[in-house]
Amino acid sequence: MLNILKKHIEKFVQVSDDEFEGIRNFFETKDVAKKENLLEAGQICKHHYFVLNGLLRKFYINEKGIEQTTEFAIETWWMTDNIAYEHNIPSEFYIQAVEKSKILYITQDNQEKLLRAFPLMERYFRFVYQRAYAAAQMRVKYLFSLSKEEFYFQSVKRYPEFAQRIPQYLLASFLGFTPEYLSEIRKRHIS
Amino acid sequence: MLNILKKHIEKFVQVSDDEFEGIRNFFETKDVAKKENLLEAGQICKHHYFVLNGLLRKFYINEKGIEQTTEFAIETWWMTDNIAYEHNIPSEFYIQAVEKSKILYITQDNQEKLLRAFPLMERYFRFVYQRAYAAAQMRVKYLFSLSKEEFYFQSVKRYPEFAQRIPQYLLASFLGFTPEYLSEIRKRHIS
Repeated sequence: MLNILKKHIEKFVQVSDDEFEGIRNFFETKDVAKKENLLEAGQICKHHYFVLNGLLRKFYINEKGIEQTTEFAIETWWMTDNIAYEHNIPSEFYIQAVEKSKILYITQDNQEKLLRAFPLMERYFRFVYQRAYAAAQMRVKYLFSLSKEEFYFQSVKRYPEFAQRIPQYLLASFLGFTPEYLSEIRKRHIS
Repeated sequence: MLNILKKHIEKFVQVSDDEFEGIRNFFETKDVAKKENLLEAGQICKHHYFVLNGLLRKFYINEKGIEQTTEFAIETWWMTDNIAYEHNIPSEFYIQAVEKSKILYITQDNQEKLLRAFPLMERYFRFVYQRAYAAAQMRVKYLFSLSKEEFYFQSVKRYPEFAQRIPQYLLASFLGFTPEYLSEIRKRHIS
């Protein structure tokens, strides 16, 4: 199962079996039940999560008391509240398993030790953050330029496996729709 | 002037004078006139820019023919179209100097050579992307949770030097306002 992390590292940088034996020791594994929270608003954000299998989402509760989903993470994606994690401060977010999931996690202290002990991991995380940042920039562009309806259909087209896997009410929350509105535009599109 | 880059690197990682002599050779310097474009939509995005002084903005032209500003960069900030730069493909964005500026730039090839020659720069760029990603995540949260008016006043409060320096019509573009609407909410706030 940990081989999933090794393969992901190898997408960006060479890592020997010996090195990986050292690297894996910095991580803990956890089985997460469906709807279990890994992080809750108000808690110090201590962990960076890597999905081995399953699906996580990140959300906050807005001033109307509604859960606003801002991100999903499937296999080989990293997730945390990055600002809270880096500065070891309370988070405004929840991180929750959408499906029964198996994850790796690392603390900020251990991540720093890992980077010092295995500089190749600096290169790996540089790529991870670089890609994540590029995707976030495109997301900002889409939030400006696409209507919510266009964004929905573009997301379904670009990430069909997501759209099938994510419960409709969570997809609606991610898009800032009500579930009713999402159901309506899907019907309109089919007819 | 290049000392600005050295100081910025030293925020994250130690660098000796000798190392920095090697590092600076990977960069070129450029003086940019006010309103000069460093990148135009349709061009291959060849460079990663670091602002020594001045102010850049990134924008695209939306389907109504209006310039939508998505980012600004002041001293010590990096800017590029990250997806287009990494994959060496045409950009959908413009990068333009808002003020007369002095910048450093590096090509993707040279950035890769720099990272191979000076692994300490992997750590530096890992931090640069990590912080940029964290900020972009917060931006997505604000785009969901704040009204445009709230976002404006929060931005002014958090980045007063920005709000003073950026021409009002560009601030309006960044916020997705018309300049008239921005002028109206500012008046309303003062009165």
